[in-house]
Amino acid sequence: MNASEFRRRGKEMVDYVADYLEGIEGRQVFPDVDPGYLRPLIPTTAPQEPETFEAIIEDIEKIIMPGVTHWHSPYFFAYFPTASSYPAMLADMLCGAIGCIGFSWAASPACTELETVMMDWLGKMLQLPEAFLAGEAGEGGGVIQGTASEATLVALLAARTKVTRHLQAASPELTQAAIMEKLVAYASDQVVATLGTTSCCSFDNLLEVGPICHKEGLWLHVDAAYAGSAFICPEFRHLLNGVEFADSFNFNPHKWLLVNFDCSAMWVKKRTDLTGAFRLDPVYLRHSHQDSGLITDYRHWQLPLGRRFRSLKMWFVFRMYGVKGLQAYIRKHVQLSHAFEALVRQDTRFEICAEVILGLVCFRLKGSNKLNEALLESINSAKKIHLVPCSLRDRFVLRFAICSRTVELAHVQLAWEHIQEMAATVLRAQGEEKAEIKN
Amino acid sequence: MNASEFRRRGKEMVDYVADYLEGIEGRQVFPDVDPGYLRPLIPTTAPQEPETFEAIIEDIEKIIMPGVTHWHSPYFFAYFPTASSYPAMLADMLCGAIGCIGFSWAASPACTELETVMMDWLGKMLQLPEAFLAGEAGEGGGVIQGTASEATLVALLAARTKVTRHLQAASPELTQAAIMEKLVAYASDQVVATLGTTSCCSFDNLLEVGPICHKEGLWLHVDAAYAGSAFICPEFRHLLNGVEFADSFNFNPHKWLLVNFDCSAMWVKKRTDLTGAFRLDPVYLRHSHQDSGLITDYRHWQLPLGRRFRSLKMWFVFRMYGVKGLQAYIRKHVQLSHAFEALVRQDTRFEICAEVILGLVCFRLKGSNKLNEALLESINSAKKIHLVPCSLRDRFVLRFAICSRTVELAHVQLAWEHIQEMAATVLRAQGEEKAEIKN
Repeated sequence: MNASEFRRRGKEMVDYVADYLEGIEGRQVFPDVDPGYLRPLIPTTAPQEPETFEAIIEDIEKIIMPGVTHWHSPYFFAYFPTASSYPAMLADMLCGAIGCIGFSWAASPACTELETVMMDWLGKMLQLPEAFLAGEAGEGGGVIQGTASEATLVALLAARTKVTRHLQAASPELTQAAIMEKLVAYASDQVVATLGTTSCCSFDNLLEVGPICHKEGLWLHVDAAYAGSAFICPEFRHLLNGVEFADSFNFNPHKWLLVNFDCSAMWVKKRTDLTGAFRLDPVYLRHSHQDSGLITDYRHWQLPLGRRFRSLKMWFVFRMYGVKGLQAYIRKHVQLSHAFEALVRQDTRFEICAEVILGLVCFRLKGSNKLNEALLESINSAKKIHLVPCSLRDRFVLRFAICSRTVELAHVQLAWEHIQEMAATVLRAQGEEKAEIKN
Repeated sequence: MNASEFRRRGKEMVDYVADYLEGIEGRQVFPDVDPGYLRPLIPTTAPQEPETFEAIIEDIEKIIMPGVTHWHSPYFFAYFPTASSYPAMLADMLCGAIGCIGFSWAASPACTELETVMMDWLGKMLQLPEAFLAGEAGEGGGVIQGTASEATLVALLAARTKVTRHLQAASPELTQAAIMEKLVAYASDQVVATLGTTSCCSFDNLLEVGPICHKEGLWLHVDAAYAGSAFICPEFRHLLNGVEFADSFNFNPHKWLLVNFDCSAMWVKKRTDLTGAFRLDPVYLRHSHQDSGLITDYRHWQLPLGRRFRSLKMWFVFRMYGVKGLQAYIRKHVQLSHAFEALVRQDTRFEICAEVILGLVCFRLKGSNKLNEALLESINSAKKIHLVPCSLRDRFVLRFAICSRTVELAHVQLAWEHIQEMAATVLRAQGEEKAEIKN
């Protein structure tokens, strides 16, 4: 395919993408396929000769779409949102074209420098303490990781390296293994200090945890993967209070800030804690500026060597929405979750299982876990909406997460009516079962 | 931005991308900027109000492009290639639109199933032993990791978990730390068993290493990050001989197989070795099919939880090029490296420093490291072409890697003439210096 065919096919693909997203409400949110559906639809080996673009585009609707769970449908209320916006998609096209691998400053200076500045922009939007910003002479700074798992692992490894070196310096007679055996990582049953857990969007109190970590010399990493985006709104910023005690902090703009996956924002107060743990300097990656102190080689901040030009997505999204546009987006989602909460509270058959703070409502039918499992099963089998459950203190709970960029109050209301109908059916079935047992 | 504006802006972006790649030869391959160039060009905070797309598109040429190292320029001969092709870019647009996070089968069945089948296609293209393929009832199979670093780390952690459990079962009195202290990982100075090292594209002999690992019960991981793509050509397949002794194998289609970053292909013989080490099963990720044995939940195969629909890129590329088209692409690059090698060998001032097997030529001026450092410095300062060095047995060596999809013999010849001119200048300077010392 040459540039001229790409011009044609690329524009067709732009229309396909726009058609898909404009029409997504008409597609069943969860697919009908059974495991193994795809293999028989596809040849067992790659073709020897080239095929046409038409053949592939046809197969998208025939083979791919029947097996897609439509995460951006306004009837998708499962997991947490994953971001999708047109500005981010445009930026990703540019990212693919530039196609640089930004492991060092020299490998593409713009890739590194835009990332540092965008992470400062985002840090300021969150009112992060100055110590986390790179600025022109700061000791801290931000980096884009692929996922919150990677950010947390990087923090853990950096913390381990730091304390190990500290102990080795203090007691040179200790072996690595003896030190390893002494190391302790504290975590709750939802992992590290978390703002906005996946199960029920609960919050650790950093103002309690932070001073203890500080006093005891413990590395404090704070993960706000989902909730972090909300902290750009002043009315939610208090949830982040205490982050000043943290050594590192991350959240995922690719969840709730309209920056398509992958984009997990991570900040540290001392960048040398990361670069000290992950430094990698073979000759073929050295460049003349690397020891100038002015530049950043992001490969020392992460596990992989390679990295895409992901900050373009942040740049496009922040500028085309503006801070106010992003705040409005967060607020709309929070309003919708409260609207759903209000609907649930009006129905005495149901109960709310955790305080609704952001865009997640945890709810259930008053009654047994079995009853609620049956309710979820009937909802997800009907495939009009899609939900996933969680377990809160051994109770089986349904999660209703506001996810789609295009979800409106009408969708939430329709979803609730549908849940009520399904509930009536499972309650009737339960009643009949009980009656049968009595007889 | 709504769908209708995206239709317009997306098409403009398609043209921008095509213009950029068609005109890339006219851009200076390495940028003129100094560290810190970008920050003063950009506001210190994100805008409160939305900006227009025009404003952003203008800034791309003003702010971004002056700081880009053009990896896809036909004058870029640094590092190793990073893949770029139009079919992969089209697939990535679709991937962004679907925007599913494929951590489990249910999270988007097509995302998981296409990946399994594409990894089988690719495994067959490489003539991998049957044990590495998933097929319909295999114990092995493939997964797309982000980078070779992640693939290698995953293999290392899986190996550690396997041997730790084995030792704990055999000697329950051993503590975790005592076991840790006993574990040994063997590696050369180029890391794990490698086919095609970064420095000079050398090859470990798997037929020697493999049987020893097999006999001693050691996990053998083989990394062919760059070279792996060449194994789709029968004439290079012998370099992979011995992979039948490996437990896991990876290479990067995002380097040399026209699948844009990120796409690191990894296979294991026993998928339970990975899923046993990384299993993660909170309630909110469970689904009705997960214990059926028919399905794959790829989150157990990797470090991150989230993952993009990356197999679409493989599907588009394999079909639109065909195996023959991909083979022709590899062969052309290898021919070009041999053409460059022949040019170097004709000039007695130079020497070739490592056997040229694939697309990399390691060469230097006969003389001191200092002389060669001066040569590289003068080449990279002129910015007509871009190279990086390596160190081979303490000798400073220049690497000439065939990288761009659009590089032709004419570019290679021009590059060589340019190198010769630069060499003449540094040799003259050296001569004058020596003359001065004599006087």
